[in-house]
Amino acid sequence: MDMKELLYEGKAKELYETDDPDTLWVKYKNQATAGNGAKKETIEGKGKLNNQITSLLFEKLKEKGIPSHFIKQLSETEQLIQKVEMFPLEVVVRNVAAGSFSRRLGVEEGKELSFPVLEFYLKKDELNDPIINEDHVKELALAAEGEVVKIKNQALEINQVLLKLFKEMNIRLVDFKLEFGKTSDGSIVLADEISPDTCRLWDLDTNDRLDKDVFRKDLGDIIPLYQEVLTRLNQL
Amino acid sequence: MDMKELLYEGKAKELYETDDPDTLWVKYKNQATAGNGAKKETIEGKGKLNNQITSLLFEKLKEKGIPSHFIKQLSETEQLIQKVEMFPLEVVVRNVAAGSFSRRLGVEEGKELSFPVLEFYLKKDELNDPIINEDHVKELALAAEGEVVKIKNQALEINQVLLKLFKEMNIRLVDFKLEFGKTSDGSIVLADEISPDTCRLWDLDTNDRLDKDVFRKDLGDIIPLYQEVLTRLNQL
Repeated sequence: MDMKELLYEGKAKELYETDDPDTLWVKYKNQATAGNGAKKETIEGKGKLNNQITSLLFEKLKEKGIPSHFIKQLSETEQLIQKVEMFPLEVVVRNVAAGSFSRRLGVEEGKELSFPVLEFYLKKDELNDPIINEDHVKELALAAEGEVVKIKNQALEINQVLLKLFKEMNIRLVDFKLEFGKTSDGSIVLADEISPDTCRLWDLDTNDRLDKDVFRKDLGDIIPLYQEVLTRLNQL
Repeated sequence: MDMKELLYEGKAKELYETDDPDTLWVKYKNQATAGNGAKKETIEGKGKLNNQITSLLFEKLKEKGIPSHFIKQLSETEQLIQKVEMFPLEVVVRNVAAGSFSRRLGVEEGKELSFPVLEFYLKKDELNDPIINEDHVKELALAAEGEVVKIKNQALEINQVLLKLFKEMNIRLVDFKLEFGKTSDGSIVLADEISPDTCRLWDLDTNDRLDKDVFRKDLGDIIPLYQEVLTRLNQL
């Protein structure tokens, strides 16, 4: 498999074409951003950690029967993935109140929610990724009605698997963001990444943050934290 | 029926108890607010117009079999209503893109929507009435699941009746906000008001605004516009 032209460069990853039209080559970057890119920094070693964590998590999910675009890890910072048509949606699953949920709705950070709360956001940088409801998804034709049902069910199923995994790692899975894509045969699969950039992960004993909130809030160096997540994941 | 103590004073209305514990006495005020009270003005004659418009609309809705808290109009600025337990929700129905829908989602103002889009907002001034989804309604226990279904169905039914009514008045019903309450026997009824304060109403021929946007955007005197709506309503 050969790497071809750069297809897309996002905040955290570069996507390249390959000689197979159905396969893409991903390079994880060392860039960290917050506030929709308002805060931006290069953090040596981040790409390596997120690539490894995502690769391991996608493998674990596959073992549990949850399909994703992930094919295989190529190097410390690279993956091969299936080319999919991305839904312009971010799907957030929340088990514990934190972040924008707490701020917007006036719910104390750390409050256990009574069920996994799902949220959709429109993925559009120039609008600051606004929160939307299912009528908006339908009106803006972001996904068909049947696709929305499948995306919600997969998100909840993924949550069940991840909750168990992270608990075994002594980590509280507070919330996380998922993205989904459609393969050429129309099936819907998990895509993008699952890493401390896209999850809130709190140590179960100390409540120490092991995720990007530490960067967002200028609370210290994230590399040892992301490394800690990878170490615990490798010990499973 | 005698008016007793002031029970609640909102931005646009005062609610008084009466000698019947199930009945409240409403006085419409002349206060106009926008931006969650950031802009506030007294506008002579507004209370009178909104009381009359709401009374007429609630009567028209009743004729079409849609229940509300409305009992009867008492005077130019006063109504008797049934006392209900209000859901802390604002339900917005949108037929045409405008206002926050256009701004948040990047949809051109005036675009006809392909179906009536429903939105829920948490009624909480100190949080600026944030938009919420049905999982939030459930998690915050704002309404039971069956109640949400009933509220949505009623809102869509009300939209059908109002669309037809306003069309006969040569007015385009762009969007509007509803509130609902629960009676002592548990049934769900339309409450609050329906007026140019709570609807976007555009003249069908000229697209002239006949609603509170004229106040929000400092485009002129709203009294002649609200009067025009009342006049057309009286001619039905």
